[in-house]
Amino acid sequence: MRKLLIGLLFLICLNDYAQNTLISGMDKLKWEKIMPGVWKASFGTSGLNPLAYSNPPKKESITELSDAPFPFTKESTFSQLTPERASIRIPLGPFEKIYGLGLEFKGLNRRGGVYTLKVDHYGGVKGYTHAPVPFYVSSKGYGVLINTSKRVKIYVGVGNRKDSKRPDPIDRTTGKNWSAQPLSDAVEASIQGNGLELYVFTGNTTLEVIQRYNLFCGGGILPPKWGLGFWHRMHTKSSTDDVLQEISDFKKHNFPLDVLGLEPGWQSFAYPCSFDWDSTRFPNPEKFVKTLRNNGIKVNLWENPYVAPNSTMFKEIKPFTGSHTVWLGEVPDYTIPEAQKVLLNHHQKNHLDIGVSGYKFDEVDGYDTWLWPDHATFPSGNAAVEIRQIYGQMIQKILGDHLKKQNKRTYGLVRASYIGASSSPFVIYSDHYDHRDYVTALVNSSLSGLLWTPEIRSARSAEEWVRRFQTVCFSPLMQLNAWASGAKPWSFPEVTDIVRDNIKLRMDLLPYLYTAFYNYNQKGIPPFRAMILESGYNATETLIGGKLNGETNPYEEQKRMEVTDQYMMGSSILVAPVFTGETERKVVLPSGNWYDFYTGALVGNGETITIKTKLEQIPLFVKDGGIIPMLASKEGKGSDKPSLEVRHYGTKENIFQLYNDDGESFNYENGNFSLLELKVTKGKNGKLKGQSKIINNKNYSYGKVNWLWMSNQTKNGK
Amino acid sequence: MRKLLIGLLFLICLNDYAQNTLISGMDKLKWEKIMPGVWKASFGTSGLNPLAYSNPPKKESITELSDAPFPFTKESTFSQLTPERASIRIPLGPFEKIYGLGLEFKGLNRRGGVYTLKVDHYGGVKGYTHAPVPFYVSSKGYGVLINTSKRVKIYVGVGNRKDSKRPDPIDRTTGKNWSAQPLSDAVEASIQGNGLELYVFTGNTTLEVIQRYNLFCGGGILPPKWGLGFWHRMHTKSSTDDVLQEISDFKKHNFPLDVLGLEPGWQSFAYPCSFDWDSTRFPNPEKFVKTLRNNGIKVNLWENPYVAPNSTMFKEIKPFTGSHTVWLGEVPDYTIPEAQKVLLNHHQKNHLDIGVSGYKFDEVDGYDTWLWPDHATFPSGNAAVEIRQIYGQMIQKILGDHLKKQNKRTYGLVRASYIGASSSPFVIYSDHYDHRDYVTALVNSSLSGLLWTPEIRSARSAEEWVRRFQTVCFSPLMQLNAWASGAKPWSFPEVTDIVRDNIKLRMDLLPYLYTAFYNYNQKGIPPFRAMILESGYNATETLIGGKLNGETNPYEEQKRMEVTDQYMMGSSILVAPVFTGETERKVVLPSGNWYDFYTGALVGNGETITIKTKLEQIPLFVKDGGIIPMLASKEGKGSDKPSLEVRHYGTKENIFQLYNDDGESFNYENGNFSLLELKVTKGKNGKLKGQSKIINNKNYSYGKVNWLWMSNQTKNGK
Repeated sequence: MRKLLIGLLFLICLNDYAQNTLISGMDKLKWEKIMPGVWKASFGTSGLNPLAYSNPPKKESITELSDAPFPFTKESTFSQLTPERASIRIPLGPFEKIYGLGLEFKGLNRRGGVYTLKVDHYGGVKGYTHAPVPFYVSSKGYGVLINTSKRVKIYVGVGNRKDSKRPDPIDRTTGKNWSAQPLSDAVEASIQGNGLELYVFTGNTTLEVIQRYNLFCGGGILPPKWGLGFWHRMHTKSSTDDVLQEISDFKKHNFPLDVLGLEPGWQSFAYPCSFDWDSTRFPNPEKFVKTLRNNGIKVNLWENPYVAPNSTMFKEIKPFTGSHTVWLGEVPDYTIPEAQKVLLNHHQKNHLDIGVSGYKFDEVDGYDTWLWPDHATFPSGNAAVEIRQIYGQMIQKILGDHLKKQNKRTYGLVRASYIGASSSPFVIYSDHYDHRDYVTALVNSSLSGLLWTPEIRSARSAEEWVRRFQTVCFSPLMQLNAWASGAKPWSFPEVTDIVRDNIKLRMDLLPYLYTAFYNYNQKGIPPFRAMILESGYNATETLIGGKLNGETNPYEEQKRMEVTDQYMMGSSILVAPVFTGETERKVVLPSGNWYDFYTGALVGNGETITIKTKLEQIPLFVKDGGIIPMLASKEGKGSDKPSLEVRHYGTKENIFQLYNDDGESFNYENGNFSLLELKVTKGKNGKLKGQSKIINNKNYSYGKVNWLWMSNQTKNGK
Repeated sequence: MRKLLIGLLFLICLNDYAQNTLISGMDKLKWEKIMPGVWKASFGTSGLNPLAYSNPPKKESITELSDAPFPFTKESTFSQLTPERASIRIPLGPFEKIYGLGLEFKGLNRRGGVYTLKVDHYGGVKGYTHAPVPFYVSSKGYGVLINTSKRVKIYVGVGNRKDSKRPDPIDRTTGKNWSAQPLSDAVEASIQGNGLELYVFTGNTTLEVIQRYNLFCGGGILPPKWGLGFWHRMHTKSSTDDVLQEISDFKKHNFPLDVLGLEPGWQSFAYPCSFDWDSTRFPNPEKFVKTLRNNGIKVNLWENPYVAPNSTMFKEIKPFTGSHTVWLGEVPDYTIPEAQKVLLNHHQKNHLDIGVSGYKFDEVDGYDTWLWPDHATFPSGNAAVEIRQIYGQMIQKILGDHLKKQNKRTYGLVRASYIGASSSPFVIYSDHYDHRDYVTALVNSSLSGLLWTPEIRSARSAEEWVRRFQTVCFSPLMQLNAWASGAKPWSFPEVTDIVRDNIKLRMDLLPYLYTAFYNYNQKGIPPFRAMILESGYNATETLIGGKLNGETNPYEEQKRMEVTDQYMMGSSILVAPVFTGETERKVVLPSGNWYDFYTGALVGNGETITIKTKLEQIPLFVKDGGIIPMLASKEGKGSDKPSLEVRHYGTKENIFQLYNDDGESFNYENGNFSLLELKVTKGKNGKLKGQSKIINNKNYSYGKVNWLWMSNQTKNGK
């Protein structure tokens, strides 16, 4: 007890750190409030501005959020310029957890780590990933964005300045609780450069901070409806006939197919790329795309940005390429508007005009062994390092804006992203392919304004096939990428029915999911998101280890154990994927009653439950009062006014505003969308009652609404 | 056959690349010959000069080497300055292999890799290691040193400029031999900074290039003789009594003990350090050190550079410390001479004056999570990144020079080193502890002017214990580091005799090994060195893999297989360590006859042999004519004029100049050393005959010489 009190006193003293004003040799940052809950500070000069490749803030939506106060004292944030680096220092309280920093595949809380935020293949040092984002969110309810295209090196509660308040050192030989990482009172970060631009976002909850950041970057993307269907990428060497055969096989096996992706082999030359159709495998691209369109299938084209000498756009792009080649192809400098035009003209004429729906932009991330060196030069004069950092973001913006001008929504894939990606119509993917890490990435993506797909490529067993399929069905982009494997959804015949059922469930959930994306678009709420953004969730961490071992743990480091394998989809569904070999798993439930999605049974309330797994199902749980509008039947999907099956879980009253629109244009931005209010009220007898009401524009509303009371004895109410 | 010819033609064309002059936007480097086989070029301004922390060149010895011509045309080396980076471009032929770049734990040939040369714990991205050295050696017989304390990012035959001659691209879908890394015609490198200084070293062999580099950095270190004996580091919490008990146990178990190392617990406070003796565990340091000296045992003290507030040197050093703490200790800026003085005064008074022989400098390498951030500031105004890069090198130089002024040789350990380390009396170690990687590091160390010890700490089995002991017995520093494990050489009783025999063999080889170090000192020949430095060795590489797999090998990368598990010790012995579980191993023999060290039997000639392993022995092979002078008996070691057993292998005539001196001072630099010529000639009857003759100074010569004809029937000749 006495120990506890001393510890408490110690922590109270430490709390003081966060507002310290002792720092010498640094300048105080000057913050300017630029909108409700958004502050800006800058010093020196910056290079390429990443926010210029994002969308403008949704100011009205930002204003609707709570205007929480600036999270620090004005005296406690610092900047410093040395001949080599521009650095900042932001206070950090002893209990704060720090999330974000981009598409990370391990853990959630970044505190205690040093991250070198570099766009790269995932791996190597911390912070090398496809979409490192110099934006972090504190559990205390604020976020910090370092808006730079230079590589940020960030020390998240690591290290202590000698002029800061800090703990007393402990003698390792005789003292107790010696740590290789003494508690630190700050986040410090720096870049090689002459200045920085910073933003602080606040909110009453961590979710609100994320919402505000997303809205500041233009809100979330609303994909075309087809983008939320089933995607299949062909083997790279496939020809027109192979594709037509595959489509026929999909029908035969009764699998949906919404988007067909072509890999390098669609091009006459690839790695580097010609961007031109291969006349042997695709002799008549126009007819090919049309045939697919007639089957209700969109075409998505793979490419990397490196231009082969035999490309029809080579001559025109050549004046705008950098000093070094990638796979012997030239590297366009797309910070130059003329270069963008060359790309867009070529792609419009050869792909978009004949109906191609979008792209998969590969190889915009890394490795150093493939891409241009840090010392490469580009005709714009922009630094090679900065161009690399924003290349993925830039190409998303160029294509996204181009199609928007044509009032066409797109949805595609990209292997690198960066700041302000929430409004970009692209989903990130990777070669990393560790299933558990892929789920962690899905969780983390929501903390950095990113969308991520744990696409399936292959599996070592039927069980793994199912488990990976289930995860991808509950992700922003449901794709089988068979570019190398040539796999089909039915590649493991013994589980084909299970795979089909899981895909069907995702397809049936389209009304619910599409509305989740609309809320992403309008309110910045990530459709798939980390549990820590859910109110009532207690983000527990456990520290294990810390025992000295001269071979394996010479620094007596503790390992942080976190729950990284569950997440929220839309307003009410908790997804708890299962990994190969797991016969049971733990699920941490936020406070309030939670119900099994499949049975409606009450499973727990604010507790950690252990469930037995079933191969057929991915565990899904719905919060009390959860309203889940689903397509009533597979056939319903195609019809003009599909019927709905609206499920309700638990005992609470609730309202769900179901969104719908034409599914492919930007007309919704002018109010051309439908909202169907689904309202559950409790009668005097305590019985739940469901009502539906069109509250905006009936054009895109649904047909018959059938209520299902999942947690009642009689499931079929009215 | 036709294919072969086309391939040949292709390569002849490529060879042309190495001398290309097409490069635009870059300046030509201007080279100045500064001594035979050494050229210098520089552009812009540099920061901290690492060579200032090395020793001056041994110009006379350099002149004795062949004066090979400049390896490139004057038109083919380039520099470029951009606002962000200073870069260079050095030509590279299609067949060249590139070695070096510091203490790497994997592979030998660096071609095809991008290395970010950063002093750090080993791991993370390529080039992060305890001793990255921006010096590479080409198989073509030249070396390039980039003399900077900034982090060099080097692209070793990676990437192609668009204005260089380069291969034609290959379509990945249909072409053959598509590679993710097309052949490149250059080494390119850059730093963040405004200039660079470069050196080129030539030689008629790769070994000569290494010799020249080592001699340019002051030649190799000649350790005190005790440094080549047995080292034992105590458990960190040991007291005076524990040490005395340990010494008595060593005697009891009949193990030699030359140096006793004390770990953190000798200090009153450690992590950060007080550098002061702990009055509980070591109440009378003077008496303690004296007692050990009387037992023929030197004392070595562990420390890291970070100063605890309760250190007796804290107040004096404080004005010279940087902005950030490490483990809450302050970080001295030893680029400031006054700071060096504080350290030396303290250490002289508290350690050296009472007879401490040297230090183990820990934690001068990394990680980023422990050490000061890149944006830290130091009172000298030198950049934090540069200070970190040379910290290990700097502290070696400061202590080495200090002791040299007292005419005392030292030998110690350090966990970070850098450019120009050959003349430093310190050996590098690591926490990495992979046995195979440790042997690879031993091989690589010789290519970068480094010494490395694969010290033993613990083992999971008696077999591993033996195998690791055997390796460390055939390394620059034979140490059991029991700081965490508390292990003793006899910790696995079932193999204690084997361990003792292996240590004894190393001790008996002292005359041979000490001469090898003298040749390091005088001629720059590494005492332990990579096979590729041995004439007649054919450095074969095999490429395996390259098969597409969407999960595990999406880029169809090939894996390079190299022989990294054998090396040379001294002039004639090939060491082929065995790893746990190996019942046989392959050994690649250079051309000429090779003989089993233990039996004298001929084992092969310029071929790869497979040998059965024995637990008792580390496989050792001797080249034809090899003369191996050994101490005749264990007792001989202690005597004033120990007798020698001189082994001869094979059938060739040979001469060995056996070096000896007082073993602890620098008097040898003034000619105060003995050379005993051991000469084997063939009589008219073809019978070998051995003669010994003192050719310089008899003071330190040996006693009776007993010749052993290892490869003859009658082993005892005259």
